[in-house]
Amino acid sequence: MTDLDLMLRFMLQVMIVLAACKAVGWIGSKYLGQTQVVMEMVTGVLLGPSVLGRSMPELQGYLFPRKLEGLTGSHPSMSILYIIAQIGLVLYMFLIGLEFDIKLISNRIGGAVSVSLAGIIAPFALGFGIAYLYRDRTDLFAPAITDTNAAIYLGAAMCITAFPMLARILYERGIARTSMGTLALGAGATDDAAAWCLLAMVLAFSKGNMSIAWLAIGGGILFGVLMLTLGKKLLSRLAVSTNETGKFSQGQMTTVILILMAGAWFTDAIGIYAVFGAFLVGCAMPRGRYAEAIRERIEPMTVSFLLPFFFVYSGLNTNINLISGTELWTVTIVICLAAIFGKGVACALAARASGEPWRESWTIGTLMNARGLMELIILNIGLQQGVITPTLFAIMVVMAIVTTLMASPLFLLIYGKVEPGTAAATA
Amino acid sequence: MTDLDLMLRFMLQVMIVLAACKAVGWIGSKYLGQTQVVMEMVTGVLLGPSVLGRSMPELQGYLFPRKLEGLTGSHPSMSILYIIAQIGLVLYMFLIGLEFDIKLISNRIGGAVSVSLAGIIAPFALGFGIAYLYRDRTDLFAPAITDTNAAIYLGAAMCITAFPMLARILYERGIARTSMGTLALGAGATDDAAAWCLLAMVLAFSKGNMSIAWLAIGGGILFGVLMLTLGKKLLSRLAVSTNETGKFSQGQMTTVILILMAGAWFTDAIGIYAVFGAFLVGCAMPRGRYAEAIRERIEPMTVSFLLPFFFVYSGLNTNINLISGTELWTVTIVICLAAIFGKGVACALAARASGEPWRESWTIGTLMNARGLMELIILNIGLQQGVITPTLFAIMVVMAIVTTLMASPLFLLIYGKVEPGTAAATA
Repeated sequence: MTDLDLMLRFMLQVMIVLAACKAVGWIGSKYLGQTQVVMEMVTGVLLGPSVLGRSMPELQGYLFPRKLEGLTGSHPSMSILYIIAQIGLVLYMFLIGLEFDIKLISNRIGGAVSVSLAGIIAPFALGFGIAYLYRDRTDLFAPAITDTNAAIYLGAAMCITAFPMLARILYERGIARTSMGTLALGAGATDDAAAWCLLAMVLAFSKGNMSIAWLAIGGGILFGVLMLTLGKKLLSRLAVSTNETGKFSQGQMTTVILILMAGAWFTDAIGIYAVFGAFLVGCAMPRGRYAEAIRERIEPMTVSFLLPFFFVYSGLNTNINLISGTELWTVTIVICLAAIFGKGVACALAARASGEPWRESWTIGTLMNARGLMELIILNIGLQQGVITPTLFAIMVVMAIVTTLMASPLFLLIYGKVEPGTAAATA
Repeated sequence: MTDLDLMLRFMLQVMIVLAACKAVGWIGSKYLGQTQVVMEMVTGVLLGPSVLGRSMPELQGYLFPRKLEGLTGSHPSMSILYIIAQIGLVLYMFLIGLEFDIKLISNRIGGAVSVSLAGIIAPFALGFGIAYLYRDRTDLFAPAITDTNAAIYLGAAMCITAFPMLARILYERGIARTSMGTLALGAGATDDAAAWCLLAMVLAFSKGNMSIAWLAIGGGILFGVLMLTLGKKLLSRLAVSTNETGKFSQGQMTTVILILMAGAWFTDAIGIYAVFGAFLVGCAMPRGRYAEAIRERIEPMTVSFLLPFFFVYSGLNTNINLISGTELWTVTIVICLAAIFGKGVACALAARASGEPWRESWTIGTLMNARGLMELIILNIGLQQGVITPTLFAIMVVMAIVTTLMASPLFLLIYGKVEPGTAAATA
């Protein structure tokens, strides 16, 4: 395909994806009590090989072309969707960082630590155990991989919290800045960072090269500390004139995009994924009218145009039809239960133990339990690196969708409706 | 390259491109009296094979990878930059349409018609003549192409006005809504549309299939008429609640993107390029607080992040080093002079003849004369379709850059400095 063809196809994809998200989102909010973001995930699965590809394979293959023969990597048209999705995600994580109140989390540091520890240790242990249980099944794990690697990988994959999703639900409901919201955001961010470090270790083990893991973990911690101390101090100068006059120029906007991209690129380059860099840069940005000016300019295009591609993208790569037969569905149920108990229940108990009331504790558990499509990123890497098979991939996707679909109705049931108008990040 | 690698490379490209545009733009505005947009074009040439590729070919090849062997189309990394550039361009043309005052142009319709006719007939005749003059040179024209086709193509390529550039200069200076600005915008839009119709004819001739040309010309006119009558009426309903309450939701934003993409896709699909659809949709959108809300949300990300990639992109594909020897430089000078007299002088005289004062007439001539990188699009198509050689391509790029670099200093000289604060589209 020439670039002209790619553009033509891309505009068609934008129309299909945005129109489908709008329609499915409307049904979800009207009849199922779901948030827009969850319905965007569902839209991805509907437009992918699992549903549209099963009923109209030619149309689906035209809209979202498969890998070209003889080519490493994806079809160029899908690579473009991937990059658009990633730009949306990076911008969105930056916005979340921009709203993230570090002071609020430091008041709740004890709670955040115990919830995030529970949210790592319990699901990791269960994932580790399940990997050993099913280790012999070559339809689930690649034969070449060692037992320990398979176990650490599945453990890490169980730890994932849908951090961007959790954040978006909290903002959609307008409770991100409450004590409970901050606790959930802090614990979610920690758990995700930990899971990415575990993934880095798996990749390091499987390549027999430990420096990958040290670079990711050491570099990530160093970047975080530098960004929130020295970086924060240096960045504060950018805001002086805007916070005084309220003016914000095009040149300032370009500077913000530059800094954000540099942070995202750095964390991606050392192996802990661009979202963390973007989030940390957002955290380190100066506040006040300056932050408000940035948010106003980045948010609309991100949330209404770019970000839906992130939630849709991975569904497009998922084929649920691979799970067939009682045995595989048993594995699926075992993994789902382990995921829910290991993450949701463990986090809720940890939150309660650290002093939150039961209602807030179960809400935190529910939110931490949602894997979202963040899970799919770690799964895609596992598939690409030859750790798991397409079948285990599909099973884990089902687990991700089940835990994510649960989140919103359970949230409404436990926490109840939140008055609109308190919403901060969703204008 | 895997998608993960592509994202890593993309973030690096964003940093390099935006940082280079910022630095070169600063020098241009401080020392050369140039606008940001012209310096973005120059940045593209500096980062491309002409300059960076000559001094540091390995670095340049890493940052902006060349075509892969055995693959049709570009390197995936460059395809991504192309799509980002096109998204920026489509959004920007939509914004220009949104500011475009059709009432103002209908008052000046006589002037717009005579300027745009002069801006088509004179350069087309000169381009046509030059093509016959140099027809035998196989280093300029592909041997397979017929004389008439080569002549129509070069004629069309001479007609191009840098419509997005002309618009951006008028907005940067804050004079887009003056009578002169509207006249220039109207004539520029008409000329560009005419040049694209001529291009469609060349492609139709060269493929021996006239239906391509009829589809482009007929479909384009039909779309324009429908959009500005029925479309405008239907779209006006979208604005009712926003124009009353001032509220503008995420869902409304998605609807706008959807309509815009549909228009851009349609005009691209019939062969007259996405920018016209985007511009026409912008023209047809309801005005008032609704249009203001859209502009506020789309403009910052477009101008500060996406659009620079359009101006940089084509420079990346240009190799000025191909023009060597006295003979080729003579051809270059002949083409530049023909371009300047055919377009700039002819349009100025036509504007004067239709009643504009001399100062405004020469300003219009100067602005119409700038080819910008719009020219490069038509040149890239000519190269891809095998009408012209890489050498004539490079010569035409030099012509595009010369006519564009002239525009801003001549504008300042003739029209003088404009008081800032009247700027409408550049917040």
